[in-house]
Amino acid sequence: MLFPTFSKSFSQETSMTHSKIIGPFTELLTMRNLPLKGALGDTQLEVIKQGALLIKNEIITEVGPFDALKSEFPQADIEELTAPNVAMPGFIDVHTHMCWAGSRARDYTLRTSGTPYLEIAKAGGGILDTVRQTRVASQETLTELLVQKCMRHLNEGVTTCEVKSGYGLTVADELKMLRAINGANKQHNIDIVPTCLAAHMPPQEFQGHSAEYLELILHELLPQIQKENLASRVDIFIEESAFTEREAEPYLRTAKAMGFSLAIHVDQFTAGSSLLACKLGAVSADHLEASTGREIEALAKSETIAVVLPGCSLGLGLNYAPARKLLDGGAALAIATDWNPGSAPMGDLLMQAAVLGAAEKLSATETFAGITTRAAAALERNDRGELSAGKRADFQVFPCDDYREILYNQGKLKASKIWKCGILVE
Amino acid sequence: MLFPTFSKSFSQETSMTHSKIIGPFTELLTMRNLPLKGALGDTQLEVIKQGALLIKNEIITEVGPFDALKSEFPQADIEELTAPNVAMPGFIDVHTHMCWAGSRARDYTLRTSGTPYLEIAKAGGGILDTVRQTRVASQETLTELLVQKCMRHLNEGVTTCEVKSGYGLTVADELKMLRAINGANKQHNIDIVPTCLAAHMPPQEFQGHSAEYLELILHELLPQIQKENLASRVDIFIEESAFTEREAEPYLRTAKAMGFSLAIHVDQFTAGSSLLACKLGAVSADHLEASTGREIEALAKSETIAVVLPGCSLGLGLNYAPARKLLDGGAALAIATDWNPGSAPMGDLLMQAAVLGAAEKLSATETFAGITTRAAAALERNDRGELSAGKRADFQVFPCDDYREILYNQGKLKASKIWKCGILVE
Repeated sequence: MLFPTFSKSFSQETSMTHSKIIGPFTELLTMRNLPLKGALGDTQLEVIKQGALLIKNEIITEVGPFDALKSEFPQADIEELTAPNVAMPGFIDVHTHMCWAGSRARDYTLRTSGTPYLEIAKAGGGILDTVRQTRVASQETLTELLVQKCMRHLNEGVTTCEVKSGYGLTVADELKMLRAINGANKQHNIDIVPTCLAAHMPPQEFQGHSAEYLELILHELLPQIQKENLASRVDIFIEESAFTEREAEPYLRTAKAMGFSLAIHVDQFTAGSSLLACKLGAVSADHLEASTGREIEALAKSETIAVVLPGCSLGLGLNYAPARKLLDGGAALAIATDWNPGSAPMGDLLMQAAVLGAAEKLSATETFAGITTRAAAALERNDRGELSAGKRADFQVFPCDDYREILYNQGKLKASKIWKCGILVE
Repeated sequence: MLFPTFSKSFSQETSMTHSKIIGPFTELLTMRNLPLKGALGDTQLEVIKQGALLIKNEIITEVGPFDALKSEFPQADIEELTAPNVAMPGFIDVHTHMCWAGSRARDYTLRTSGTPYLEIAKAGGGILDTVRQTRVASQETLTELLVQKCMRHLNEGVTTCEVKSGYGLTVADELKMLRAINGANKQHNIDIVPTCLAAHMPPQEFQGHSAEYLELILHELLPQIQKENLASRVDIFIEESAFTEREAEPYLRTAKAMGFSLAIHVDQFTAGSSLLACKLGAVSADHLEASTGREIEALAKSETIAVVLPGCSLGLGLNYAPARKLLDGGAALAIATDWNPGSAPMGDLLMQAAVLGAAEKLSATETFAGITTRAAAALERNDRGELSAGKRADFQVFPCDDYREILYNQGKLKASKIWKCGILVE
């Protein structure tokens, strides 16, 4: 894979002097005018036949039929495409742990052979194994490893992805991870949204003193993150093996008061913690495999986006989160990979969204919204995720003539071309 | 993808005059000396570090450490590889319906939106939609479409695959399909094993007269297949919506008496028909999602290979076949894609085997055996599926230094090089 040298902003000397029309697309899926919450039918999906985009600088200024745009804007340059091609927004992966060093292949093989988690951890495996390997890696190595994964992700249509820290678990190592993540964001065309997950689990040095560790993060790490502008989001893993709700609540309240947005690991194995996410006005509540009717109802009533992670279910061989029930209840649903070295090593967003959709009976509109417009809301990046006037021109085309081929091929039909800010990057 | 012109047999003028050593492999997984039936642990997996293969013509003549082979066979040519690389046998996909025309993307989207199967069929969908489109396609078109899929399959490490007819459902159209399948086998480097599935379901022309249709196949189709040497295997779909056990038994007995091997669709939605497969000495009993203790016990006692199809579970969003119980019961387990236009459109054998292994808790040895040596047994092709003296040199290398990376990456790490009969083809 080769990437053109490409600036993420075109506001200065690289700005285009002319508008350009890109098209015609056999079908153009705009993903616009969809409600943020609740179930969606395929009749709600706007499909413009022989559609096109008018782009100025990095922004879409008009959407419509190719011929109409050509007549209306005769001065515009034309980037003409050959059929068949179905265009849709670039995908947005809202929950990943893509920054890590080392491999957990040994853990994986032990796990599929039926070895219990505690035995794997005793044998030196588990999250703390990744922590050890990430601590000894340099910032430059972490950036390089992350850029490699970003290359695959962008190549598979993901134009924006969230990346969490959480394998450092000391102030210095969490800062190293976040600097590495920001470094990758500068080096690569994909847009990375960093999140501080220093509260992934209590480090070995603080066993039995979790609250002290959280205090340390609040007082020494988060201010430095703000000083260096390394992240604007804070996450915590609420689970028996990590942090309790009682520990999490004051931590999250303080982080929010400092100005951080909250995105929280909840209801993975034990239901209930998503209620706290809703109560605190978290932007997203992620995992939800164990959510029951009570949690679904709370999420549906809240403004918190429900983020489900089929890649984790496929990695661990466990059940999916109740995506259908969440939508029917009225929640906003985003779908993400959870790409990480332990429970979700696959990292293929389109395949995972398709497979989840087949299992949970999601309409194509619901599945696509979960990795585009509703995902944009989960990252508070409302400048993207749909193809409409005023949005960033992050989009992709698939080599087919019917949008239904995309999910039908369950991840094996990938985009043939990808644009970031109106520039062809793949 | 470009393919070298390549003959599947090297017995005449293209035969190599010298032996050659290919290696060194960081790890060489031979898959030899494994029992055909029952559970397998990872200590049973032979891993030769810095291994190599000695190949003469298309056959492996020695397996061992690279240095030892070089000393022992100083006259042999050397095809030296750069590290890291993990070698293992080419994959064998024992159950596919890869020969079809048309797309069922519309069905798929309706199904994930919750439309019941009967409504989809009434709207012109279902298997009979593929039958209509396959009937109007020419033999040449069917070959071309199949070759395209074979290209992807070989590129993903599948060196041998079974392909069924079953979308013709007339004597002429089933012959056309089988000729197309044999045509693809001649055109492409992958080895195709054809199976006659004229008894896929009763065609519309024989509604309520299934037995007459089966008689027609027995008397007009199967003799012609033998005359043209188009297939040596017969399959039938036993299910409420297709053929009953009562209809299937005489059909299968006669086919077997004619000399056909039997491989049968059983226990997909209704348990019980695998007992018939065992009773008749079928080579394989395929699907098994609905199998209960009684069927598992019968399969374990028999010589019939249990073939499970995770791609169908992923396509329909339903449960997997009880792979763990089958192995623990003592059955021989093969894993196949079921690649077809309706229930299993993905067709990625390695990904599906890995995902099944994670869900069913299969050891790496069990998963690998299911797509190599045990799969070879399911196709009665005992000349392949393991890397040992006397076997065909169909193998692949993965760009990693630890075999555990292969399943850990859940299909996203594919072979970087693939050899067929000792010749590098990818």
